[in-house]
Amino acid sequence: MEKILAQAVLKGQEVTKDGHVATYIPELAKGNPSDVGLCLMDLDGNVQVKGSFDKLFTMQSITKVITLLLALEDLGQEEVFRHVHMEPTGDPFNSIMSFEVKNPEKPFNPMINAGAMVVTSLIHGDSKEEKIKRILDFTSLLTGKEKTFFDQEVYLSEKETGHRNRSLGYFMKSTGIMKGEVEDTLDLYFMQCAMLGNCVDIATIGAVLSSNGIHPLTKERVIKKEHARIVKTIMTTCGMYDASGEFAVSCGIPAKSGVGGGVLGAVPGRYGIGVFGPALDAKGNSIAGIKILEKLSKDLDLTIF
Amino acid sequence: MEKILAQAVLKGQEVTKDGHVATYIPELAKGNPSDVGLCLMDLDGNVQVKGSFDKLFTMQSITKVITLLLALEDLGQEEVFRHVHMEPTGDPFNSIMSFEVKNPEKPFNPMINAGAMVVTSLIHGDSKEEKIKRILDFTSLLTGKEKTFFDQEVYLSEKETGHRNRSLGYFMKSTGIMKGEVEDTLDLYFMQCAMLGNCVDIATIGAVLSSNGIHPLTKERVIKKEHARIVKTIMTTCGMYDASGEFAVSCGIPAKSGVGGGVLGAVPGRYGIGVFGPALDAKGNSIAGIKILEKLSKDLDLTIF
Amino acid sequence: MEKILAQAVLKGQEVTKDGHVATYIPELAKGNPSDVGLCLMDLDGNVQVKGSFDKLFTMQSITKVITLLLALEDLGQEEVFRHVHMEPTGDPFNSIMSFEVKNPEKPFNPMINAGAMVVTSLIHGDSKEEKIKRILDFTSLLTGKEKTFFDQEVYLSEKETGHRNRSLGYFMKSTGIMKGEVEDTLDLYFMQCAMLGNCVDIATIGAVLSSNGIHPLTKERVIKKEHARIVKTIMTTCGMYDASGEFAVSCGIPAKSGVGGGVLGAVPGRYGIGVFGPALDAKGNSIAGIKILEKLSKDLDLTIF
Amino acid sequence: MEKILAQAVLKGQEVTKDGHVATYIPELAKGNPSDVGLCLMDLDGNVQVKGSFDKLFTMQSITKVITLLLALEDLGQEEVFRHVHMEPTGDPFNSIMSFEVKNPEKPFNPMINAGAMVVTSLIHGDSKEEKIKRILDFTSLLTGKEKTFFDQEVYLSEKETGHRNRSLGYFMKSTGIMKGEVEDTLDLYFMQCAMLGNCVDIATIGAVLSSNGIHPLTKERVIKKEHARIVKTIMTTCGMYDASGEFAVSCGIPAKSGVGGGVLGAVPGRYGIGVFGPALDAKGNSIAGIKILEKLSKDLDLTIF
Repeated sequence: MEKILAQAVLKGQEVTKDGHVATYIPELAKGNPSDVGLCLMDLDGNVQVKGSFDKLFTMQSITKVITLLLALEDLGQEEVFRHVHMEPTGDPFNSIMSFEVKNPEKPFNPMINAGAMVVTSLIHGDSKEEKIKRILDFTSLLTGKEKTFFDQEVYLSEKETGHRNRSLGYFMKSTGIMKGEVEDTLDLYFMQCAMLGNCVDIATIGAVLSSNGIHPLTKERVIKKEHARIVKTIMTTCGMYDASGEFAVSCGIPAKSGVGGGVLGAVPGRYGIGVFGPALDAKGNSIAGIKILEKLSKDLDLTIF
Repeated sequence: MEKILAQAVLKGQEVTKDGHVATYIPELAKGNPSDVGLCLMDLDGNVQVKGSFDKLFTMQSITKVITLLLALEDLGQEEVFRHVHMEPTGDPFNSIMSFEVKNPEKPFNPMINAGAMVVTSLIHGDSKEEKIKRILDFTSLLTGKEKTFFDQEVYLSEKETGHRNRSLGYFMKSTGIMKGEVEDTLDLYFMQCAMLGNCVDIATIGAVLSSNGIHPLTKERVIKKEHARIVKTIMTTCGMYDASGEFAVSCGIPAKSGVGGGVLGAVPGRYGIGVFGPALDAKGNSIAGIKILEKLSKDLDLTIF
Repeated sequence: MEKILAQAVLKGQEVTKDGHVATYIPELAKGNPSDVGLCLMDLDGNVQVKGSFDKLFTMQSITKVITLLLALEDLGQEEVFRHVHMEPTGDPFNSIMSFEVKNPEKPFNPMINAGAMVVTSLIHGDSKEEKIKRILDFTSLLTGKEKTFFDQEVYLSEKETGHRNRSLGYFMKSTGIMKGEVEDTLDLYFMQCAMLGNCVDIATIGAVLSSNGIHPLTKERVIKKEHARIVKTIMTTCGMYDASGEFAVSCGIPAKSGVGGGVLGAVPGRYGIGVFGPALDAKGNSIAGIKILEKLSKDLDLTIF
Repeated sequence: MEKILAQAVLKGQEVTKDGHVATYIPELAKGNPSDVGLCLMDLDGNVQVKGSFDKLFTMQSITKVITLLLALEDLGQEEVFRHVHMEPTGDPFNSIMSFEVKNPEKPFNPMINAGAMVVTSLIHGDSKEEKIKRILDFTSLLTGKEKTFFDQEVYLSEKETGHRNRSLGYFMKSTGIMKGEVEDTLDLYFMQCAMLGNCVDIATIGAVLSSNGIHPLTKERVIKKEHARIVKTIMTTCGMYDASGEFAVSCGIPAKSGVGGGVLGAVPGRYGIGVFGPALDAKGNSIAGIKILEKLSKDLDLTIF
């Protein structure tokens, strides 16, 4: 096992030179493209780690998994999916045209920006401050950390430059899809994207999903079984941006990536996996992360198919 | 002539029952759908008027003609059209999808909302206050009125509910098409849309265009000949929303409509025409206004083709 | 088990009244909307059957699975996916706009019409006749039948009325995506869609996939393990038209439906399932078929997630 | 006048090096990019000619004007516009996506390929042969020639490679917009595009339009006044592909271009103009043709605005 992990990380390191760190959020451009980290956690909480496994990064789109889980726990499956659909889409994550072309009553799925913003707007809380506190606390519950932080500079960087998301938000406001103050929801959304984690943290979240909601460290149920199953399914069909279909074929592990370079994997009944590598491919996925997960899937026979 | 005008207005009144006042801006929903007014001004400033010719209404999209003229006077033809194209589009006035599909470097034309917002953002002025003052003063120059007002309630109504325009603005900000603060430009845009005028006012602006820039009342040149020609051309190809092509065939008069119910017509070398009728057709044009202009075009042979 | 199946079929029968038989192919409109059939086959070839399990129907889009398997066997994974991508898309199965908007070098996936036509055009064979013979023979190999037939009337009906597919074909020809004679490929495509099967046949194909390529009746390997895995994955992400995401959440079984009313399910390592019910929902999936599969998934815990 | 024409042609020749002959129809690629020709005809039939004024070229999209006129004469305005709209569109001439996005009941206008094919399908005649004969004869009537020919090689070249038009045709067939056999209509359409003319021929057609239907050579009425007016209007809003708006501003002459390099201009009440120059700009318009028309418009004050 030790050798398999080492080889996988090596494979990952080899491809980092073909990727590029995200630049559309100015703060992210400062990432080190040759960083690679890995954490594999079994359902008893045993971990194996490699490389920059404890380096903190902003979890970005990986947090779409967290807020979807929290919304499901807050409102239940039926109510959440009254506001967002669960269909994969061939469009890029920040696409707005399908809203005009198809005039849908809800965004395609919770893994694209539009859907994630709607999900975030559903989180319970009397104020923006309470909502972000609840998101941070729920993240800590999942990762088993005492506290979760967000990177203030990345948050402000996104807030200042996130005009495409702002445009999406106001479009959904104009059609009635999004309720409440758009700027408040954007603020929450930018904060959640800037939440910090490392490979161990996201492997832990993955393990929670893999065990259908039982925390690997405390053995306590932290989310409903049904919600874990739903989220793993949506990760499979929509989790890797518009490369989700290809990733399902090449790897077959429910996973969610973020432009900060992290990838969260959840192998049902077996492992949670956290990978980190800020050099991204053209679709916005960690180039090393994908390579490592493919290698592990093959060597450890992790595919669900 | 008197009889021709009376018959045209009668024709217009007959169709008002088939239209509906705009409702997407709550304040506009209060308009009286059976109102019809007309003013025909020759290039010496002689007017003939009918019906509610002196009733004030918000000029809405008609002001796209005014700010385009002001921008042309401020920056010149070349600079203005570095920021906005002049092609008609089959898309609705508030369409956003073509920005994503075609990734253009500038909006299609100054008569759709996206283009008009960009044009407004170009108006000279050190502050938002100075810019709106310059727009109001320039409007007064064109109409020959001492002062121009805007309807505070309509302005606030649009500001509060204009999320589709806000989405358009932030989309253009995200692609670099729009410079400066989006909310400031939106504010100016909503104010300009709420500017008040009556049939005589818009007939006067039409007469300025028809005479290639000489004001019919003062005989002074108020805009460059070339700018008058450009604006009349763009009115012909793009002035009546996505019914511009049909209106060119049925009427053949350079014209611009607004959802407040006004239509400004400019018959080159002959007349300025102002029509008012807040009952709109499905494309957002005054249903009586179109009928009246078609009737006048036929009876007075006003087509440019 | 017997009781579970009976209850599932009952559930399916209850909802047939909410669906409608396909009408866009005139011959299909003759289907009996209240028909429901089921066959569950384990990997040793043991079957349990219910209702109209032996009624023949045209397999329609289910044949996309068959030709994809044959193309994979003929050309190998790498070559096939040089001509078609494997990404789910939120667009309808006969969508053409994404070709113009995104100008892709290949169709999104083999489960939409455009992708399936390209896959069909890849099948080895020196003539159209040889190709259709190879498709029919391969289908027989999978189903374990001596011969496979296609419904001549349905084939001609589609050939005469399938202008949207013809449009797709010529579009791909114009961009170079499709090689060879468009009409020949269309002919093959319409023939394959008209191939006849019953619930047992498609359950058998499902069992081949579930066992990773070993035929449940002969215990012989009929397709490569890797190809079975790929096809199950693509069925999961793209198999149920633009309801694939929702079906993955509600059911979690790799499946492919056809407008003839059949649904092929493949539960990895456990069962092949064939369901039939020609009353379709709005997305084109068998309304009873979906209900039955959801019920079975829940009662027999068949989800892969 | 002589000097003005000479200067205009000189200006045109200077820009030919910046353009390229059409290559999507293989036969057209053989054109000589430095060719430039001009014919200006007044309403008494007096001509002034320059350069390659008598070189024959395929009229291509210019024939959209001819068949629209014939359809109007055959069926009348009301019936023709029941089958095709008259709105300009920002989409390219061969766009198909708007049919899927907007599901219109008819094509946008008769100057895009889809609209022209529908118009061609409306021409009276009991057979394809009779229809093409009627189109050729009507063209001769307009040009005052004894006979009109089409270039067999260009026709076959388009027929063999025109798969995008074929796709458009079958799409419209599938939605019911186009009646009859698609291949027959395509055949007629490809033949009409291949009709041969020179600068004098298209200047003569332009003069017929400018004089509202009176032939400049015979002084006989050949088309209805109303139809001449309609066609000039549609040429203005839609005649120069998706550069029509810019051309209206820069030139202000109703005109129609073809990828064979010709441009037909119709200055109401004054001139018919025929220009030729096979080097095209990025939008598919003759680069010399546009330059010459702009120069003439300025020097002879030909704008209608």
